[in-house]
Amino acid sequence: MPSTGLAATPIQLTDTEIFDAHAGGKLSVQLTTPIETKRDLSIAYTPGVAQVCRAIAEDPHVAAAHTWTSRLVAVVSDGTAVLGLGDIGARASLPVMEGKSALFKRFGGLDSIPLVLETTDVDEIVQTLVALRSSFGAVNLEDISAPRCFEVERRVIEALDMPVMHDDQHGTAVVVLAALTNAARVVAREIASMRIVISGAGAAGIAVADILLQAGVGDVVLLDSQGILVHGRAGLTAIKTEYAARTNPRGLSGDLAVALDGADVFIGVSSGTVPEDLIASMSDDAIVFALSNPDPEVHPDVAARHARVVATGRSDFPNQINNVLAFPGIFRGALDAGARRITPEMKLAAARAIAEAVESVADDMIVPSPLDERVATAVARAVADAV
Amino acid sequence: MPSTGLAATPIQLTDTEIFDAHAGGKLSVQLTTPIETKRDLSIAYTPGVAQVCRAIAEDPHVAAAHTWTSRLVAVVSDGTAVLGLGDIGARASLPVMEGKSALFKRFGGLDSIPLVLETTDVDEIVQTLVALRSSFGAVNLEDISAPRCFEVERRVIEALDMPVMHDDQHGTAVVVLAALTNAARVVAREIASMRIVISGAGAAGIAVADILLQAGVGDVVLLDSQGILVHGRAGLTAIKTEYAARTNPRGLSGDLAVALDGADVFIGVSSGTVPEDLIASMSDDAIVFALSNPDPEVHPDVAARHARVVATGRSDFPNQINNVLAFPGIFRGALDAGARRITPEMKLAAARAIAEAVESVADDMIVPSPLDERVATAVARAVADAV
Repeated sequence: MPSTGLAATPIQLTDTEIFDAHAGGKLSVQLTTPIETKRDLSIAYTPGVAQVCRAIAEDPHVAAAHTWTSRLVAVVSDGTAVLGLGDIGARASLPVMEGKSALFKRFGGLDSIPLVLETTDVDEIVQTLVALRSSFGAVNLEDISAPRCFEVERRVIEALDMPVMHDDQHGTAVVVLAALTNAARVVAREIASMRIVISGAGAAGIAVADILLQAGVGDVVLLDSQGILVHGRAGLTAIKTEYAARTNPRGLSGDLAVALDGADVFIGVSSGTVPEDLIASMSDDAIVFALSNPDPEVHPDVAARHARVVATGRSDFPNQINNVLAFPGIFRGALDAGARRITPEMKLAAARAIAEAVESVADDMIVPSPLDERVATAVARAVADAV
Repeated sequence: MPSTGLAATPIQLTDTEIFDAHAGGKLSVQLTTPIETKRDLSIAYTPGVAQVCRAIAEDPHVAAAHTWTSRLVAVVSDGTAVLGLGDIGARASLPVMEGKSALFKRFGGLDSIPLVLETTDVDEIVQTLVALRSSFGAVNLEDISAPRCFEVERRVIEALDMPVMHDDQHGTAVVVLAALTNAARVVAREIASMRIVISGAGAAGIAVADILLQAGVGDVVLLDSQGILVHGRAGLTAIKTEYAARTNPRGLSGDLAVALDGADVFIGVSSGTVPEDLIASMSDDAIVFALSNPDPEVHPDVAARHARVVATGRSDFPNQINNVLAFPGIFRGALDAGARRITPEMKLAAARAIAEAVESVADDMIVPSPLDERVATAVARAVADAV
């Protein structure tokens, strides 16, 4: 569907301005200490630098304070699930990873380098990061396709003694939980008692289900392209089998119509479409998060005929669910606190901080602006406190 | 030996100022385009960035102009031969690699990221760089121990379609050739006709021998800790066997005394010491490059009693042989020209450019200052012209 007409205030971008802004890439490396004199050179390089090397050799912890690693996030992708473009490969994914690194700096005050991997083999991805582990302080996995992303994240977390997070999973989940927290305030409900339907059982869908379960939601129903995940259904991967068991307490089976009938919340992370009559079949004061980009599962104006609160992933509608609200602050908090892991408690704390950053919650104001600089600071503090 | 007393103008550094200058490391990442508005965000990240990704997926060459890779050098080390410290490991080597990246920026105008590898296995080093190859535009291998460094460099060059150079080898060799070119002018000799002795058959010694052979020197004698490399000697590695065949045309065997008797040039890259009487046994107008750091093979004041031109690796004596004269310009020139390899011709051109950057050659002025900003520019131009 054409995006004109969809939006109240669409941002129209020309190819020229996009390519001009990307000329030479979006990042540069700068010196933090000057090298202007022989003395400077003798300090920053040989012979002075040898003192710092020797100190780290004796005590590896010296590296945290005397190299850039303690504030350095590697943004790592194999290019298999890039935006809505799919498996476009490592090289073509690089502009996204540069953008991600830029956002880490802009909002989290963290240095960040994009590392794209010309392999989709899980063993090779893990081995590469293990070999590189002394080069950075944290790993943001990005745009890795499901279900490989689950194994990659699990194994990289096990292998590295530092914060590691697949943002497509957990960044999305944290912001969805934050938005849902405030949407629940709008409709004066507790999220624990809601019936929540998630369309899409990939990286984002699984992680959203997980954080909702962590947050105490009792009735989560998860669907993939074949319908509701239910115990015993054919064609379930290992992770889907696990979530079929952990969700769907009423044992529903069937399609989205079955799931949405009387549901309180729809969360779309599926790239599919949802007919208006299904939205109409939801409960009163329904909440609809149609997060597919650029085309939401249901047009927000259509959803608004039947739902009390509507959110999308787009910047030209109210209530934009944008990961940038989460990842800079989560990594900043984890690194500030010297955390070795990003725990469920830290993610829940991040979601609370994002929700609380909205001063006047309303049906068209359930999340802060992605450009609100206070958010990452508040998230970082909350995450560090939860370590 | 204590370094005080050695130097005319020694730079005395305190631990405090060294560690203060290294607090938080020496590098940061910056944005090259602002992210201040929703429009900025829509261009640098989704949805705008997808246009650039799509263009690269269709034509990988678009990446050169629209990511930071075409000016990005990875400084890669396994930490096995760091300065004079030896095998201190990847993490402890990081301050040197950050310093190297800082010098790439300061003198070459190139972005650079340090990547240290927690493996000394040649296969794993090569595999890691192959996996990462779309993340950068060139590789500066650094501080990798001999003889592994020769195989690592050869295999990385074969595997990657971009400029790759082990700086401990070729950076040193290029600056030595530049210095020797001007030293030869001082003594009014042609280097081709000189008898040149190289003490040390590690990374630097082998590369110096190689570039001297490329430059037309007919009589190069190379020594390791067991003496002169000569055909049939016991205990030669593969690379030493190769260089025993390529050098030593008079078939000398024995120790440094045999080699230096009547020699025109001594180049020390060995961490050993050379007694004064051996320097005294060299020819008239001898040239002595005692490059071990921090302790030269022979005190420059002692060498100067017998030699016409003396150089060291130290900043507190005249004629400092410093790789920073070479590597920023070599990589800048190679990247500017889109070169896929750093060829012998490019290295020879770099050495000529460095030599020519000295305006008034004299016995205490055979190389430019390492802080002379014009050098990298001149080297880059010469290297690009030699592609």
